[in-house]
Amino acid sequence: MHATGSRNQGGAEPLSRFLREARPSWEEALASLVALPTVSADPACRTAIRRAAAQAAALIRSAGGRARVVSTPGHPVVLGWMGRNPAHPTVLLYNHLDVQPADPAEWRTPPFSMVRRRGRYYGRGTTDDKGPALTLLWAAAYARARGLPLNFVLVWEFEEEIGSPHLEAVLAARRRDLACDAVVVSDTVWVSADRPALTYGLRGLVAATLELSTGSRETHSGLVGGAARNPLTELCALAGSCYDEARGRVRIPGFYRGVRRLTPRERRWFASSGFRTRDFAAAHGLTTLRTRGRGEVMEAIWARPTFEVHGVDGGYRGPGVKTVVPPRAALKVSMRLVPDQDPARVFALFRDHARRRLPGVRVRCDALLAPYLTSPDHPLLAAAARALEWGFGRRPALIREGGSIGAVVSLHRVLSAPVILMGLSLPTHRYHGPDEYFEWRQVQGGVRSLVSLFSEIASGGTGP
Amino acid sequence: MHATGSRNQGGAEPLSRFLREARPSWEEALASLVALPTVSADPACRTAIRRAAAQAAALIRSAGGRARVVSTPGHPVVLGWMGRNPAHPTVLLYNHLDVQPADPAEWRTPPFSMVRRRGRYYGRGTTDDKGPALTLLWAAAYARARGLPLNFVLVWEFEEEIGSPHLEAVLAARRRDLACDAVVVSDTVWVSADRPALTYGLRGLVAATLELSTGSRETHSGLVGGAARNPLTELCALAGSCYDEARGRVRIPGFYRGVRRLTPRERRWFASSGFRTRDFAAAHGLTTLRTRGRGEVMEAIWARPTFEVHGVDGGYRGPGVKTVVPPRAALKVSMRLVPDQDPARVFALFRDHARRRLPGVRVRCDALLAPYLTSPDHPLLAAAARALEWGFGRRPALIREGGSIGAVVSLHRVLSAPVILMGLSLPTHRYHGPDEYFEWRQVQGGVRSLVSLFSEIASGGTGP
Repeated sequence: MHATGSRNQGGAEPLSRFLREARPSWEEALASLVALPTVSADPACRTAIRRAAAQAAALIRSAGGRARVVSTPGHPVVLGWMGRNPAHPTVLLYNHLDVQPADPAEWRTPPFSMVRRRGRYYGRGTTDDKGPALTLLWAAAYARARGLPLNFVLVWEFEEEIGSPHLEAVLAARRRDLACDAVVVSDTVWVSADRPALTYGLRGLVAATLELSTGSRETHSGLVGGAARNPLTELCALAGSCYDEARGRVRIPGFYRGVRRLTPRERRWFASSGFRTRDFAAAHGLTTLRTRGRGEVMEAIWARPTFEVHGVDGGYRGPGVKTVVPPRAALKVSMRLVPDQDPARVFALFRDHARRRLPGVRVRCDALLAPYLTSPDHPLLAAAARALEWGFGRRPALIREGGSIGAVVSLHRVLSAPVILMGLSLPTHRYHGPDEYFEWRQVQGGVRSLVSLFSEIASGGTGP
Repeated sequence: MHATGSRNQGGAEPLSRFLREARPSWEEALASLVALPTVSADPACRTAIRRAAAQAAALIRSAGGRARVVSTPGHPVVLGWMGRNPAHPTVLLYNHLDVQPADPAEWRTPPFSMVRRRGRYYGRGTTDDKGPALTLLWAAAYARARGLPLNFVLVWEFEEEIGSPHLEAVLAARRRDLACDAVVVSDTVWVSADRPALTYGLRGLVAATLELSTGSRETHSGLVGGAARNPLTELCALAGSCYDEARGRVRIPGFYRGVRRLTPRERRWFASSGFRTRDFAAAHGLTTLRTRGRGEVMEAIWARPTFEVHGVDGGYRGPGVKTVVPPRAALKVSMRLVPDQDPARVFALFRDHARRRLPGVRVRCDALLAPYLTSPDHPLLAAAARALEWGFGRRPALIREGGSIGAVVSLHRVLSAPVILMGLSLPTHRYHGPDEYFEWRQVQGGVRSLVSLFSEIASGGTGP
């Protein structure tokens, strides 16, 4: 990191030089983080995560900060501090360094070995969220080097992809060390590749695994079919009782209670967001959609709850016919929630529905994340909008997002600071998919935007 | 095989000696057949099947017969002839030498390496149907050696477990070479371990694979959930629309048309069959059943149709949460049918139902087998009952069976001969399951029964 070399220069010119000079070290840092398979869902990745945490702390230190790896009953959290002047405002930067699983068979390049190609960085975690994490760190280092009167706190988590089960406890235990005036989270995705987006709402999540065991060994439908309970058939049928595939509606009784309708103002924002159904489908490789109406698609992914099956275990998936009745089966499902659905209540509705229909079923809760909705009237949001316009040359869209970031809810709840969702990922980046990538122009625009936002915060123009 | 050594002796004594003397060669033959993984559903087993066919033909030849390996577009059929005197009646013996897949991880012994233990033979295919096949061959060899005025035709198939797609064509093309007065099929299972069973009805089968592709790559419900079509959710929900898991009923419109009710006489037969729900559950390792009523269980497995899910491919089955929306998914299902449901009609109902609910779904038919019901008044059935009583010391139960043997329907249709289902497998043998086994006492009783039946046929007491 060469931030100090640009210290005594003003305007956009030194920032351009900084970006040019910082690029090799930024790329090297990303490559070394991508090389560690920090798959939080996979117990086998525990060591890689520990090594990544140490590496992350070292990066913060080499940017001039102090850093600490905090243990939890799960994976660690890395905390960092750059500046601690109580007269200056403090900005907390949140990112996560854990990643989704990646099956090398589905990738064109090895997922855990970063490949550089024409300004793009391919590898698991490049866009979600290792690339944005380093972008924020580099921007903070530049701001500090430029002498901006700001303190930074960094929170780098390793359990975001599994629902941040221990973050809130860490935040609560160190509430005073983490006190801040604003939180910047960079873990969201733009609507289109050429227009920045500011996100004011997120969906929540309930994830669950159902297991049904009806025997001690595999048998065969010719021998037992009709009298035996086939756990695979019953779990699939249960999924059917939760979801009407013809109408695309969730059928769990009481599920839609509390769902807030979009306001006309929100519909206008969405309408002017630059969202295009065709681009959306192309970006995610979707060849068929439930609806092609633009407003309906945006509403479906940002403001309506879902029921999804993610995997069904048990039985036979090989070639040919095998009329097996397996002794047990498991179903992985999740539901995305919107304000004001309550995750604990929705899980209970689902669990009770499953138990009513399938005697003996075990229902395990894998994740509960509340939906999030922030006020679009906060001055920090306007400042962030200006900053993005300066950094990327275009006014950002004001949108919601369909994903769930439990950390956002925790940060807001524990630290009582406004949270701004300033994502740098593009819809083309294959977030969570094979061949995920990030790109240098997002780093450039991101650092510019962040430095601009930091300047506004430092000048006191974003107070409530 | 030492059959010729017992030729000039009469009564039970020479048969006992024959069994004693023949045991080592019988066991050796079974071990060598089990060692070849003849999994007809697995294309990788093609070579093993070719070798097993050659070995089977050699066994028939060493028993004094002629044999021929007949190629088909799929796996071969081995045909054998022992005796061709047109003045003598001809009995056709049908068995199959292909087996179900076996996952070694689920077995206590290697599935394709036969293990002998206290009169039991463990290994895939020992009871279904390699052991019974050799039992019939040894019985025929003994009968020929004893000079019984009978010809035998052997039909050993290698595609029974995948629904006998080519058998009927082979039978039709060689109808004259295979002409016979009676067909004995030994591929059914007793109701209890201590009472023989004669089976007069079989269920049919429709097996199908559904595939739904909605995208070109994996994505994530936080990004696309609600607008994207999740093929896994939709296929599970489709299964739910086919089957009411709470009531255990198939919901495909028109599915139950043609289902024949049990007659009071059949209910009496079933009631006196020795079937015990507790034994049935224990034999198959079932810890929970749809019903525990004895009559209802027998009716459910023998005389009622089913809908079963056998495997669901696609998505994520690993540890933790991964909110994947897979680009495609597949569902393997089957339906057991009873007289007089028509498999082609039921498949069409299912396909149309699936297409109506899931636009773009591909429905592949994997198997169509007609149900089978024979007249319990045929004199051959009475002869077989007497033979089993003589061979095993107990009057057999008259039952139906829940499995499907397409070969039975084909043999009956092409050869116009009465088919007798004289199974030697016990409910404890783990038919299609891990740790499948066969046992020597079933070989002993089986050879005795068959020799007795052959004698009755030779004496002309079983004509229509």
